[in-house]
Amino acid sequence: MSFPPRYRAKSRVDASGEESRAKAVAVATELFALAGYRGTSVAAVAARTGLSQSGLLHHFPSKAALLAAVLEDRDRQDGAFLAGTTSAPLGWAAFDALTALVARNSTRPELVGLFVRLSAEAIEPAHPAHAWVQQHHAGIRTWLAEAVRTGVERGEFAADAPVGSIVRTTIAVVDGLQQQWLLQPEEVSMAAEFEVFVSALRARWGTAG
Amino acid sequence: MSFPPRYRAKSRVDASGEESRAKAVAVATELFALAGYRGTSVAAVAARTGLSQSGLLHHFPSKAALLAAVLEDRDRQDGAFLAGTTSAPLGWAAFDALTALVARNSTRPELVGLFVRLSAEAIEPAHPAHAWVQQHHAGIRTWLAEAVRTGVERGEFAADAPVGSIVRTTIAVVDGLQQQWLLQPEEVSMAAEFEVFVSALRARWGTAG
Repeated sequence: MSFPPRYRAKSRVDASGEESRAKAVAVATELFALAGYRGTSVAAVAARTGLSQSGLLHHFPSKAALLAAVLEDRDRQDGAFLAGTTSAPLGWAAFDALTALVARNSTRPELVGLFVRLSAEAIEPAHPAHAWVQQHHAGIRTWLAEAVRTGVERGEFAADAPVGSIVRTTIAVVDGLQQQWLLQPEEVSMAAEFEVFVSALRARWGTAG
Repeated sequence: MSFPPRYRAKSRVDASGEESRAKAVAVATELFALAGYRGTSVAAVAARTGLSQSGLLHHFPSKAALLAAVLEDRDRQDGAFLAGTTSAPLGWAAFDALTALVARNSTRPELVGLFVRLSAEAIEPAHPAHAWVQQHHAGIRTWLAEAVRTGVERGEFAADAPVGSIVRTTIAVVDGLQQQWLLQPEEVSMAAEFEVFVSALRARWGTAG
């Protein structure tokens, strides 16, 4: 949805407000990635953003609102990337798109750190990102399951390919490699390891066609 | 190492001290799993154990000491299990042993939760479990790499099997499935998904022999 330009025209104050908002989201991403949501205070985000605490609360009425903005920002970036170049990749092409996403994540340690920290923290049902984590996993599962089912229909995957298990192990590899990479960024190539995994899937359930 | 029985004889006071210690470790495991190390206070562990805070600090001089005891306890349980039934499984047998460990973990949500929470928290270099997480990963990598290399030598694995990548993706699957299982314990069978993964590895790098 996009508004006519005249509605988008901003006064200098609005433009600088937008800037502060974006900066706060970037700072919060970094701090949540490092110390977790629970371990990060609104005061720390405000200080690093260069705002007073009430200035920050003007943009985000609570720490949970700030978290929501951080997560939306992350999902927008990933969604745009996956939907972007190839249009809704299906069959094995979905695994190529995932490999590209994994390679791209290798350039974004702060976003990967955020995801790893929050995914673990938010297993706790009372965590404000709990619903997000559940939805995030469900979204990837739905997309990937459709891609594999289409691959079966097209004859790219064997007819007896266990769709659910392929989907779950694929997501597990992506998530698990992120942790290992954060611990040893110099020694782990997430994309190379992921390709090795995909080659095993192809050997087991790929067809010649 | 084991002492002659007379050194192990305990007064009633010692026996009850031993009991409190074990209970504190169990309570800390549960709270660290739920709220993380950073999110758990010594006071909360003491209260749930039924000790005063100074009573708890008599057994564990700091929260970090309590964490160390929790992690040692966890490693002792896993190490005993892996080394236990089969003696140092090598080649594909190592993957059977891992499958059994994954199945066993499905009965221990509190230990799995602890590991998932701490692994994510302790990526931060200043975290008191940071060295433990690094060593824990290194230990599994070393064991599994030796198992695969031996499998190559025995002709169970193809000569060109990429040992490092097989090891890293296997650990990633185990770790990633733990997260999914904690989020959806009823819908995920960690052992079944892991076996599907191992069948793909076998299709790609197993030999008929």
